[in-house]
Amino acid sequence: MKLLDEAREAVQPLLKSRLDTLPTTLRQRAAHHFAGGGKAVRPAFVLATARALDADHDTALTVATAVELVHNFTLIHDDVHDQDTTRHGRAALWTVYGTSEALLVGNAVCALGLETLDGLKGVGRLARCVTDLCEGQSLDIAFEQRAEVSLDECLRMSAGKTGVLLGCACALTALNAGADDEVVRAFDRFGVELGIAFQFANDLLGIWGDEQATGKPTGSDLARLKKTLPIIRALQSGTEAGAQLVELYAQGVELDEDQTRRAQALVARTGAREWAEAEIHRRVDLALSFVEKTGSPELTALAKLAFVYYSSLSSADS
Amino acid sequence: MKLLDEAREAVQPLLKSRLDTLPTTLRQRAAHHFAGGGKAVRPAFVLATARALDADHDTALTVATAVELVHNFTLIHDDVHDQDTTRHGRAALWTVYGTSEALLVGNAVCALGLETLDGLKGVGRLARCVTDLCEGQSLDIAFEQRAEVSLDECLRMSAGKTGVLLGCACALTALNAGADDEVVRAFDRFGVELGIAFQFANDLLGIWGDEQATGKPTGSDLARLKKTLPIIRALQSGTEAGAQLVELYAQGVELDEDQTRRAQALVARTGAREWAEAEIHRRVDLALSFVEKTGSPELTALAKLAFVYYSSLSSADS
Repeated sequence: MKLLDEAREAVQPLLKSRLDTLPTTLRQRAAHHFAGGGKAVRPAFVLATARALDADHDTALTVATAVELVHNFTLIHDDVHDQDTTRHGRAALWTVYGTSEALLVGNAVCALGLETLDGLKGVGRLARCVTDLCEGQSLDIAFEQRAEVSLDECLRMSAGKTGVLLGCACALTALNAGADDEVVRAFDRFGVELGIAFQFANDLLGIWGDEQATGKPTGSDLARLKKTLPIIRALQSGTEAGAQLVELYAQGVELDEDQTRRAQALVARTGAREWAEAEIHRRVDLALSFVEKTGSPELTALAKLAFVYYSSLSSADS
Repeated sequence: MKLLDEAREAVQPLLKSRLDTLPTTLRQRAAHHFAGGGKAVRPAFVLATARALDADHDTALTVATAVELVHNFTLIHDDVHDQDTTRHGRAALWTVYGTSEALLVGNAVCALGLETLDGLKGVGRLARCVTDLCEGQSLDIAFEQRAEVSLDECLRMSAGKTGVLLGCACALTALNAGADDEVVRAFDRFGVELGIAFQFANDLLGIWGDEQATGKPTGSDLARLKKTLPIIRALQSGTEAGAQLVELYAQGVELDEDQTRRAQALVARTGAREWAEAEIHRRVDLALSFVEKTGSPELTALAKLAFVYYSSLSSADS
């Protein structure tokens, strides 16, 4: 997508010059992680928000860089927490330099993000966002060990993990554009809702993602008995298919290929796939309602990204 | 020490109210760590600096709280990195809630520290200090895996691990007292030198600490073949005793009680103990030279803390 490509390009020089200020050891290690690139979703939202509000471009680039650094801190640490060995098809940082070293790089990158915002408005807001991201990840880990998780709890966790930073990115941009409290709040809610929409898209791809497109085996979340939003919806649907899925999960052992295919069919039969797809649409519409006054075609295009992303990566069969 | 007790008491209400703002899960877990108390060395330096500069007390309390939070982030994470199971005689956070959970609490506590400073001067400075602390810990881990580490490298690591935050604590206080650049820099150097003095004291206690007073077996750093400042000095002394220590270390296996006693005697024979004790005195004097214009008896008392601390905890025999 053009807006993402442009944002990635635009933010690159400042991102690189900020990373260059890290002390030697950390800088060399951080380079491995950042060489992998990234989708630049958050910078794209920052830059589009800035244009919609006629805000200063250089300030927006600083905000975009700060937020992108904080985002990468979560990626580096989450790979350790989840023991994920690859990211964007490359070795995850901790597999190259060790767990402690990767954690230290992550911490430094987070501090670098906060430092980047120094002199602009909202450093405290971004720091608060970091604590919310930690709470989201903490809930995520806790839920994996619990037998039952309610949809509300899972939504709160998803908001914490994906929503708050996207909301913060847009809010910080509005704040530094001199927008009043109401507009800042509207942009925050815009980002939070879209973050949740992205989470729904991710969760759907964890069940029906196309292996060739996503790089992960199709149905991997089901195989690993994860409790994502559509899966919780299916488990608690009160349908016959839902009851069978509960039984499969209750065995507590990773599913083989046949069982995974069966689990996919069961989730689909509960209606959870349509429900989650409708939720993406609903969240996108809700998000756009918060910023409709700006009439920005870019914000509209970015808001629909979650659905585009899902459509392009999901497998045709259900 | 009275200055420490007063600082601990003074900072407690704000520290507690800041911790109360953490999201639920993190707050409950952080409570375990903070119930252990702490020496409040950094708050004591902040408050003494503020009095020496006739600065606003409430602002100083905010700075002290911010710095104390960042310090506790490093403690929580270091216990994970070093797999230390206890802290101040209580179970380390990660042994109670798990590694990932402790790391997340630590990250949130760090962000909380930076957020606490929002509205005052120096958020960027404190964030930069966090990256320096990460570099220091990263070097520490790297050195453990290397056969040879020079004294200079070890000093740089010690400055990163202990000096920069104490320097930052004093500098932030001076900065917010409206001091000019030169004074801020002087207080920074004051703290950095004392941080290194503390590191020398710690390193000496790691060899000759009294088991009953420190809670750690005497000679534990030698037993674990650690390369601390006095040990490196001994290893590289070019003396006969130094050569024998090199041989002991080259075996690469943890030392038993007899070997540890022998290693203690060898280090002493190289003169490394006297050297390190002299280094504490030299650093304390150097530190005081940076702030002598203030004529503050409190700063003088605190500066001598490193030596008091070492004297009170070390065993009489060498």
